[in-house]
Amino acid sequence: MYGETIAKLIEELARLPGIGGKSAQRLAFHIVKMPKIQAETLANSIINAVNNVKFCSICCNITDVDPCVVCSNPKRDSQTIMLVEDPRDMAAYERTNEFFGLYHVLHGVLSPMNGIGPNELKFAELLKRLQNNPNVEYEIILAISPSVEGEATAMYTSKLLRPLGVKVTRIAHGIPVGGSLEHTDEVTLARALKGRVEI
Amino acid sequence: MYGETIAKLIEELARLPGIGGKSAQRLAFHIVKMPKIQAETLANSIINAVNNVKFCSICCNITDVDPCVVCSNPKRDSQTIMLVEDPRDMAAYERTNEFFGLYHVLHGVLSPMNGIGPNELKFAELLKRLQNNPNVEYEIILAISPSVEGEATAMYTSKLLRPLGVKVTRIAHGIPVGGSLEHTDEVTLARALKGRVEI
Repeated sequence: MYGETIAKLIEELARLPGIGGKSAQRLAFHIVKMPKIQAETLANSIINAVNNVKFCSICCNITDVDPCVVCSNPKRDSQTIMLVEDPRDMAAYERTNEFFGLYHVLHGVLSPMNGIGPNELKFAELLKRLQNNPNVEYEIILAISPSVEGEATAMYTSKLLRPLGVKVTRIAHGIPVGGSLEHTDEVTLARALKGRVEI
Repeated sequence: MYGETIAKLIEELARLPGIGGKSAQRLAFHIVKMPKIQAETLANSIINAVNNVKFCSICCNITDVDPCVVCSNPKRDSQTIMLVEDPRDMAAYERTNEFFGLYHVLHGVLSPMNGIGPNELKFAELLKRLQNNPNVEYEIILAISPSVEGEATAMYTSKLLRPLGVKVTRIAHGIPVGGSLEHTDEVTLARALKGRVEI
């Protein structure tokens, strides 16, 4: 009922993750009402991003300069590497301003059901990275989500890295700060109990 | 931390309605991982939509053909015009397959606080449309949301159209089909009572 061009735009927007038919329609109407120059800026930044973006050759983060901003910062502690699933998780830890090591982005978790084995993730790059500097005493911090697949990935990683004599740690799971026990799920409560520390 | 091009894309996406910083980040990462051809299709459909879309000269709907698909359909009942705020509301009624008249899109509701008076909406186009066919016995159905501003717009419209001898009706407000009375708000309950019909 809107004609071809809007229908096409709605269809393309609805392909994006987390955007259903109705949101796509709302976005499309917003876009057609936008000043032309602003819509063109949006379209161009999509094209630019897709054309210029690559993986960092060190940490596999998504970046447009190689090595990425974090890996090329000499002030970062290169002995400590946080292993994350996704560049967004890296972004989340960067926002804390509390982690000064480097990262390694796996781009997923092991999921045999979806055909994602170790070769689909950036494990080879991680091994190469560690083996290139055999004299460094690395600490690898697993910051992988505590889902079933995340757990399997964490197990796999620790088995993979043990022969290298690398220290493998894992971020704590427990009650979120400001969260109430009453509203916390049982698995998290159990994890928090298991991970208790002496004060 | 991702470099300029991704940051720019995130910024542009975050300008869209209903997309906050985190969603914009998620969308941006999805887009950079998309096949190049698909990202270009998305960018092109944005450009196409912005360049080709106009208001229908009859009903003010957003369209790329003028008159729009609804207005140019000879099977529609041109005596009945449903007045809606937004093309999305028109789309919602089209999905019902129960309305066979035409529409008129106001593109908003009266909102003096935001500087939206009758001249900012498509009232002039509506009046012209009705006055061009003085011998037709129109029914104008108000399908405007029952907010404070929507109520004011409905009142304004009925006053505006009364001198033309036009029949003005309003869609019913009440309990949604499948909704429970218990979970319905008081205003809707009151409306449903007021709008009761004999069975």
